[in-house]
Amino acid sequence: MAKIAMLGSGFIGRFYADSLQGYRSRDKIVSIYSRRTESAQRFAEDYKVAHHTTNMEEAIANPDVDIVCIALPNNLHEAAVMLCCLHRKAVMTTKPLGRNAEEAKRMLQAVEQAGIFNGYLEDLVYTPKFIKALESVKEGALGRILWAKSRETHPGPHSDWFWDIEQAGGGCILDLGCHCVEITRSYIGKDIKPVEVMCWADTQVKPIDAEDHAIGLVKYENGAIGQFEVSWTFRGGLDLRDEVMGSEGTIWINSFLRTGFDMFTSGKGANYVAEKAESNTGWLFPVGDELNELGYNHMFMDMFNAMEAGEDPKETFYDGYVVNCILDAAYRSAKSKLWEPVQLDIWRGKTGVTKDSHLTEYDADHYLVKEEVTHYGAKKVILKNKKTGKIVERVME
Amino acid sequence: MAKIAMLGSGFIGRFYADSLQGYRSRDKIVSIYSRRTESAQRFAEDYKVAHHTTNMEEAIANPDVDIVCIALPNNLHEAAVMLCCLHRKAVMTTKPLGRNAEEAKRMLQAVEQAGIFNGYLEDLVYTPKFIKALESVKEGALGRILWAKSRETHPGPHSDWFWDIEQAGGGCILDLGCHCVEITRSYIGKDIKPVEVMCWADTQVKPIDAEDHAIGLVKYENGAIGQFEVSWTFRGGLDLRDEVMGSEGTIWINSFLRTGFDMFTSGKGANYVAEKAESNTGWLFPVGDELNELGYNHMFMDMFNAMEAGEDPKETFYDGYVVNCILDAAYRSAKSKLWEPVQLDIWRGKTGVTKDSHLTEYDADHYLVKEEVTHYGAKKVILKNKKTGKIVERVME
Amino acid sequence: MAKIAMLGSGFIGRFYADSLQGYRSRDKIVSIYSRRTESAQRFAEDYKVAHHTTNMEEAIANPDVDIVCIALPNNLHEAAVMLCCLHRKAVMTTKPLGRNAEEAKRMLQAVEQAGIFNGYLEDLVYTPKFIKALESVKEGALGRILWAKSRETHPGPHSDWFWDIEQAGGGCILDLGCHCVEITRSYIGKDIKPVEVMCWADTQVKPIDAEDHAIGLVKYENGAIGQFEVSWTFRGGLDLRDEVMGSEGTIWINSFLRTGFDMFTSGKGANYVAEKAESNTGWLFPVGDELNELGYNHMFMDMFNAMEAGEDPKETFYDGYVVNCILDAAYRSAKSKLWEPVQLDIWRGKTGVTKDSHLTEYDADHYLVKEEVTHYGAKKVILKNKKTGKIVERVME
Amino acid sequence: MAKIAMLGSGFIGRFYADSLQGYRSRDKIVSIYSRRTESAQRFAEDYKVAHHTTNMEEAIANPDVDIVCIALPNNLHEAAVMLCCLHRKAVMTTKPLGRNAEEAKRMLQAVEQAGIFNGYLEDLVYTPKFIKALESVKEGALGRILWAKSRETHPGPHSDWFWDIEQAGGGCILDLGCHCVEITRSYIGKDIKPVEVMCWADTQVKPIDAEDHAIGLVKYENGAIGQFEVSWTFRGGLDLRDEVMGSEGTIWINSFLRTGFDMFTSGKGANYVAEKAESNTGWLFPVGDELNELGYNHMFMDMFNAMEAGEDPKETFYDGYVVNCILDAAYRSAKSKLWEPVQLDIWRGKTGVTKDSHLTEYDADHYLVKEEVTHYGAKKVILKNKKTGKIVERVME
Repeated sequence: MAKIAMLGSGFIGRFYADSLQGYRSRDKIVSIYSRRTESAQRFAEDYKVAHHTTNMEEAIANPDVDIVCIALPNNLHEAAVMLCCLHRKAVMTTKPLGRNAEEAKRMLQAVEQAGIFNGYLEDLVYTPKFIKALESVKEGALGRILWAKSRETHPGPHSDWFWDIEQAGGGCILDLGCHCVEITRSYIGKDIKPVEVMCWADTQVKPIDAEDHAIGLVKYENGAIGQFEVSWTFRGGLDLRDEVMGSEGTIWINSFLRTGFDMFTSGKGANYVAEKAESNTGWLFPVGDELNELGYNHMFMDMFNAMEAGEDPKETFYDGYVVNCILDAAYRSAKSKLWEPVQLDIWRGKTGVTKDSHLTEYDADHYLVKEEVTHYGAKKVILKNKKTGKIVERVME
Repeated sequence: MAKIAMLGSGFIGRFYADSLQGYRSRDKIVSIYSRRTESAQRFAEDYKVAHHTTNMEEAIANPDVDIVCIALPNNLHEAAVMLCCLHRKAVMTTKPLGRNAEEAKRMLQAVEQAGIFNGYLEDLVYTPKFIKALESVKEGALGRILWAKSRETHPGPHSDWFWDIEQAGGGCILDLGCHCVEITRSYIGKDIKPVEVMCWADTQVKPIDAEDHAIGLVKYENGAIGQFEVSWTFRGGLDLRDEVMGSEGTIWINSFLRTGFDMFTSGKGANYVAEKAESNTGWLFPVGDELNELGYNHMFMDMFNAMEAGEDPKETFYDGYVVNCILDAAYRSAKSKLWEPVQLDIWRGKTGVTKDSHLTEYDADHYLVKEEVTHYGAKKVILKNKKTGKIVERVME
Repeated sequence: MAKIAMLGSGFIGRFYADSLQGYRSRDKIVSIYSRRTESAQRFAEDYKVAHHTTNMEEAIANPDVDIVCIALPNNLHEAAVMLCCLHRKAVMTTKPLGRNAEEAKRMLQAVEQAGIFNGYLEDLVYTPKFIKALESVKEGALGRILWAKSRETHPGPHSDWFWDIEQAGGGCILDLGCHCVEITRSYIGKDIKPVEVMCWADTQVKPIDAEDHAIGLVKYENGAIGQFEVSWTFRGGLDLRDEVMGSEGTIWINSFLRTGFDMFTSGKGANYVAEKAESNTGWLFPVGDELNELGYNHMFMDMFNAMEAGEDPKETFYDGYVVNCILDAAYRSAKSKLWEPVQLDIWRGKTGVTKDSHLTEYDADHYLVKEEVTHYGAKKVILKNKKTGKIVERVME
Repeated sequence: MAKIAMLGSGFIGRFYADSLQGYRSRDKIVSIYSRRTESAQRFAEDYKVAHHTTNMEEAIANPDVDIVCIALPNNLHEAAVMLCCLHRKAVMTTKPLGRNAEEAKRMLQAVEQAGIFNGYLEDLVYTPKFIKALESVKEGALGRILWAKSRETHPGPHSDWFWDIEQAGGGCILDLGCHCVEITRSYIGKDIKPVEVMCWADTQVKPIDAEDHAIGLVKYENGAIGQFEVSWTFRGGLDLRDEVMGSEGTIWINSFLRTGFDMFTSGKGANYVAEKAESNTGWLFPVGDELNELGYNHMFMDMFNAMEAGEDPKETFYDGYVVNCILDAAYRSAKSKLWEPVQLDIWRGKTGVTKDSHLTEYDADHYLVKEEVTHYGAKKVILKNKKTGKIVERVME
């Protein structure tokens, strides 16, 4: 059983609490910290939390607490982490880890120096679909991974602090790109070094200082490409999709808007309000159990199982740090209009990986370009002569 | 915390165990009964169960046990339930409750007389999609429910006993129809009396005595129609879909083959074996977390929460009994080729409900047939004169 | 080049004209008949038709006319057909052929006696998807056909005469069921005799005398089952779907609401009105080219090609007659609540076909029930002993 | 009636001929040129073409010919166009117009100087789905267009010349990117100037000199972004999808792999070979009428209607030229790793367009960031103070 101090009683804190306590879980929130008393109180009532406070350190230091869960605006992560180090409490923090790689690196070094359990709450690599997809990829069902794209777009976040670049540290690249980068990095291989980033970003619709739309490419040492598409200007709900291309296969995942649940309502029947949807009449696409589909349940399961086993969870502060480094490069690229190198002071994966070969042997003299069955049922191969480079076609009987 | 005796170590018993113990659950299987020692032993090892036995009564009577979970072939349900009554242990049993209404009725009366907690493990009314859909229906998003269809078809069950009419009690009507009937009955209203059933059934493909394909219509007292489509001859995987039509809306749920997860694999990459799919190359449609998508997690959550609260779960033996009564009528109809009445000796819902009116008032003299916007943007109404019955069209400015 | 007299200038007449003249066609409407002068005139202008009239016989007798296209309410088909016979003009008529089998039979006998070309405009067996699907079925991709379902439901027809049982001859069974019956009959085999029909029908929502919702099962001599689901009460647009189950495969066709074209609009941008949709904001599912998707283009191509070649088109009055016979049985069944025989005075397909066997040989002593690959990769067969009937399981190495 | 000389008897020439003559068209191919006699002869027989030749000029100069249709490898377009100019024959050519902007410009200038009708056969802006989608966009259903992406990927072309960089002029960027660029440019507005391009390209799988995978971003003067994703390494068939984001809406189009037609076949029934699919068993996704879905029919209709009316078709050599200019910039960018300017010597659209404002007025003091309905049904606005830049939240009653 894990006993948790929750820092933050807002949208994400409540989402986490629903996952932590909403099922037949053996885990329990024992202390809630919020910046406002009423909010802390209401949370404590709603989730039957024994202790509430407006003093962050008090929540962390509470002797009942095994692990601290940070669900605060981005600019408060570092201070909270440092208190966890001080009091030697296990800590897990919401995404992104820092507002930039510098903050992230300090947090990483602090938790490792303090020797405390640290988890990075990147829920979207814990969705049931992702978990199964990654297994397939690891078993080789897609062959060599060539490209992995993740897209997260919606009409903008709910809370005001996201829209304030000082508190948030950035716009949709930081808010949504952190998910996409970790998803695609996982498909390509977390031990493969991200090398450089090209990013376009703009503020197209919202009257804000940060970007509300961005597209980025992340090049990895083995020649694979990661892509993120993020926006706060998308119309139609929450668009959450991944695509992976491998030399032997393809994966398409749609996590939200088309998951096999379609509903039409004229709106006459009742004043029905659908969650997160942009309308409450016409064709709607609900998700059965959001907490599960968004990966919260499997994420916390991994966190607590790892903590109890004295192991690292699948996602640690180190992963959060790598993500911040990639996003920093994206921000630099959006300004410089150049491919920007990913500056990784700390790198624990493989080094010196080279690009995979694109030369498939056919016979002593030829490479295989393509093999196909023609309309009339014959097998055809297109070959390239190794010496002359000439392309030839051969129809087999 | 619930302490469970599992009866049965086969396919469904393991599925249940994965759900009961696979997450951060506070519940625990403490005894396993199987007809074969090796099987009991292996289950005990796999799920870390303290006690295993080939004596059913021993598992039930075990003083550590709070609740018994029956995961046995259909012909053994009654005997197991009777032992639970004898030892006054809470009981929950897999679907269908009995092989027919007679068995089901005896079990229902026994548990009620014994005063023990009883749950009917109809997982498909606990899927996250179904739960949310039913909420919408109850809030009125679909208006008056007119028709609800559920379809479950696949290439046939895994275990041999299903194919033996004596052990199973029937074919796909009993095996799959029990799900479909409870799903559609829930949408229409569990307090609305099922009145009569028309069913076609045949053995089209399999060399068995029971039916391998059937379609049935269930008429309810309020004029709504339930429909089931079941088969063991479907090719392409597990087809699990519901459709609901209401006067104000529509719901379409696809629980398995099209849930937003598409994968193509050439099969060259690895010897990848996909679960429950009919092939392991080409386009595949995996499900992220089957236990969750099939409702097991939410089902057991409801069972244990209800038991702890001293309340009835959403699905009790009474529901299992009603389902058996409807299926009995379906079997009779398949033979007699007539609409057969549903014989409900015990009925606890509404009585004397009449058909909903199909006369929508337009004005003093007319009923409204249809209202629509024409190509050129005008509003058009089609009306029926209350006295003459004449249909007229009116275009509004 | 075909020169056409169009009878009827309403919704369906215009739809036909758009198909006949909307592309680079060599065919031309040369005369238009309408019951109202203004309507005939407007049609003549819109489609550049040389001759317009309110005298039906004048349009038919027009010496320029090669072929007459009947696009009139159901109660006027017979009179129009008789005039075509009188003037020995080729004729093609919209669906259904008659309001009942009696009318249809008289029309069939009249055109055959007159020796004139006759085409039955059942567009939905000419959709590009259907054509390709049927080809696959004929090539054996689905094995033996077990069940074919067609569903057509929408919120009710546009024109007032449909709602008047005298002019229409029936409700949604006649209006929509005629499509579904011919679709499913085509998959099962047009030479296989339909034997009997079970139908449920009701008036659930609309204040009319005819049925607004019906479900029917049609049993064929070889044991295959056709199913139709029709309604004028569906909410959400035009639902047009077919499903086919064969012993070796499955086909699912969605012709309207989910065809790979999704649009979301807030409605703020413009006063956009989507065709046939129930709303003009939120998620909409347009169809690219309705005329093509609904089969009109391929239907008229077959009609004119056949006429020029002196052959029968794919769909003749005979097909229309068979459909009317099946629908008559459906209406009788909806009243009698019995499986009603299909009364086919004229039958030109196979006779004495028996049910296909469901006994798949495995070896001298066993039938094969099921073959599958287990979780751990072994091949498992479930067999039935031919003599004892006992079911056994064998795991192969 | 149009009388056509077809240059080229290969895959695309036959595809065109099927569209030109496969329906009830009034148009006719009267001459066929092929480099090989047997091929010319076979084509002439298959399509009942009166005249066949291996002399290109002979086909063009043929006095029966009204219009020349170029269906040749990329390196032969220019020579063919020049002969059309010489003989003053109307000309339409397959995509891309040239192997680069230089070739394209010469062809454009030649046809304009000769004063002949010229059409650019970019079929994918003529698909029924695209046509309807573009109409919606022009009517404002999506508001201001922010981003338009087109993706075309498949396992590689059928003919050998595509794989030879000399004949083809490039790899998948030229072969597939030309489609994507014209599609996205059409959504954004063909009168809006493309400004600069960033492109990643690589040869990941095929043993060829050209790229087999590329992703590009095209920036337009109004701040909108076009995106192309192209590959010859995709596994699973032909992936053809467009996505458009506007300030008021979204469009998603899937033209091939998910169009409402699903088929499963065990492969036992027959030796069924599906077109363009990578496998012929398992789940397959056929397209009903490829010619129609790929836009060929509507494309030729526009071409001939325009020619007869003495007007320009929707797509002319000028459009082909603009596309080549954009692709040239993409190739430069793939090498330089910089955003490369689009060098448009000839530009006929708007100039000096500025970026659309992202400041939505709320009241005198505030801009509107977001408006939403909260969980508890209240309306909430997030605002930005015009002077201070401060973000505030207001809940309305």
